[in-house]
Amino acid sequence: MTGEEQVLERIERARRRKARVREDLVTLAHGAGGKATRTLVEAVFLESFANPLLAPLGDGAVADGLAFTTDSFVVTPLFFPGGDIGDLAVNGTVNDLAMCGANPSYLSAAFILEEGFPMDDLRRITASMAAAARAAGVPIATGDTKVVQKGKADGCYITTAGVGTVDPSIQLRASAARPGDAVIVSGPIGEHGVTVMLARGELDIEAEVTSDTAPLAGLTACLLDACGPGAVRCLRDPTRGGVATVLNEIAGASETAVVLEEDAIPVRAAVRGACELLGIDPMYVACEGRMIAVVEPGAAPAALAALRAHPLGAGAAVIGRVAEDPPGLVLLRTGFGGTRIVDVLVGDPLPRIC
Amino acid sequence: MTGEEQVLERIERARRRKARVREDLVTLAHGAGGKATRTLVEAVFLESFANPLLAPLGDGAVADGLAFTTDSFVVTPLFFPGGDIGDLAVNGTVNDLAMCGANPSYLSAAFILEEGFPMDDLRRITASMAAAARAAGVPIATGDTKVVQKGKADGCYITTAGVGTVDPSIQLRASAARPGDAVIVSGPIGEHGVTVMLARGELDIEAEVTSDTAPLAGLTACLLDACGPGAVRCLRDPTRGGVATVLNEIAGASETAVVLEEDAIPVRAAVRGACELLGIDPMYVACEGRMIAVVEPGAAPAALAALRAHPLGAGAAVIGRVAEDPPGLVLLRTGFGGTRIVDVLVGDPLPRIC
Repeated sequence: MTGEEQVLERIERARRRKARVREDLVTLAHGAGGKATRTLVEAVFLESFANPLLAPLGDGAVADGLAFTTDSFVVTPLFFPGGDIGDLAVNGTVNDLAMCGANPSYLSAAFILEEGFPMDDLRRITASMAAAARAAGVPIATGDTKVVQKGKADGCYITTAGVGTVDPSIQLRASAARPGDAVIVSGPIGEHGVTVMLARGELDIEAEVTSDTAPLAGLTACLLDACGPGAVRCLRDPTRGGVATVLNEIAGASETAVVLEEDAIPVRAAVRGACELLGIDPMYVACEGRMIAVVEPGAAPAALAALRAHPLGAGAAVIGRVAEDPPGLVLLRTGFGGTRIVDVLVGDPLPRIC
Repeated sequence: MTGEEQVLERIERARRRKARVREDLVTLAHGAGGKATRTLVEAVFLESFANPLLAPLGDGAVADGLAFTTDSFVVTPLFFPGGDIGDLAVNGTVNDLAMCGANPSYLSAAFILEEGFPMDDLRRITASMAAAARAAGVPIATGDTKVVQKGKADGCYITTAGVGTVDPSIQLRASAARPGDAVIVSGPIGEHGVTVMLARGELDIEAEVTSDTAPLAGLTACLLDACGPGAVRCLRDPTRGGVATVLNEIAGASETAVVLEEDAIPVRAAVRGACELLGIDPMYVACEGRMIAVVEPGAAPAALAALRAHPLGAGAAVIGRVAEDPPGLVLLRTGFGGTRIVDVLVGDPLPRIC
């Protein structure tokens, strides 16, 4: 066994071990969407709520032609270039439904407001939610409002849930990826996360970046139409944990490798520059209006054409392929001819990005 | 015009005025479920999200045979006699579906955790959610976890959403109440709210009270079966704002009066005693496992028998009748032969009860 094989075997053994939360207290990393979140979800939520719908841990649950999903939004600041917590909350849930191959039917919106929150900010947020819901063609059908004392929240938290209908012929799953499949991203990555980080103003960096927040249900419908439902294996939106984390989930669930070409991954210069200054890799930075599509080898040209024909997919690119070995890992072939393992996110370099 | 008529006319004029939020900042009262919540919902949320599904402002939205609802839970303390935030969150959403006449199909659960929250408390909460979901026969199908920094939440907030199926012959609406209808409560009122207040330990009162938190979908199914769907006009669970607020909503939506007999309203002695010491009226105190049913006059005996035959409806009682005049008001006939107006909740005497 070579040194590399031994390393891979150790990683593999660690992966197969039953998830167990070792911390006594919740940490920010548990909410970052990476390794600690995964462990918490498997060891606590999945363990308690054990049921076959929850087990695939996709962006939503699908059963009886219905897709159902929820997300809480705790982004700070509440307003940032290109969006705010309101359209983020609507688009986030629309996108989770879209990633299930669903056509969104209804959204719910539940607000947790901090006493003293400015009413005008609330009006601005609800106006932006209404506009996003209109743009996605989905009504906000039901809601709730709670108010907590000053100091018990951070202005405004929003939890949206969504219901959609799914054509039974559409079966998108992370476990469905097969060697040879093309891995496509629908546009440049990392814009939302970098925008929010910079909007906090804690760093003395200025960059022309705006959030990519957008509803993707129209884009996924175009893709599924163009390829036929069977040719699309899996759709995921790379939010918390970024593209790296989503691809690790796909590689893990399908027991395949994902091999990426670094030069093919679209990253805008401003995002790349800001990431360098922040000391983070854009592969781990959240998008809120991009998706990863894994499609059958033969369907890649049609998929790419369909995505590029849509305004939200104009920057789409094939960024890699699914391979047989090493199963469960994501590898990146760098521009210099080297290869490195791209692991899931550890810790939380970008707290409260969504 | 008599003095009383003038008062009623003034109230009526105020009611018909377009809702307008006068405060610049969100206050605890905006989350209390009473008058300020109603104004906020009408003037901000309904104004922004304007759509026919949201407009009836019921416990959930119903369309195409599907019911959909959501609620955030911010109760403090997280654990109290008879329950905790976990079963409260599950039962609350199950009950909102049940009040739509729906059979609950799936729940979602989204957690906002404060950094430093004890993992053992989280395990205890998820175990209690799982038990409540099992008891209600509904799987928790999808979820989300966010973590915010210490001081930006209060341990754990949970938002649940739920989807259910509704028989199209069931049309429950607050606006459907008609003069002569019987107003039934399924059991003694105010237990949840009083329990949570006492559990805070800020008041030097001890009382043998436990929360009534329970899933009501089985009870509503029995009631609808026994009466036939057409005979049940409306179901509501009196959570925030209590029985008084729910009945005001029914009177307002149906443009009828609700006339209650004070002596008929079931309130346990311990709850009555604690309410006297707290200086609050049990009519405004939240229940989490009770419901108000408005049924056709002829169906009242069958409804009462069906409720009493179920363990969660053993204490059911007819507490009043719907009348023609004065439209939009709730009147209480006291044991001493007087009559007083029972208005909606103003302010928030019991913050963060659910």
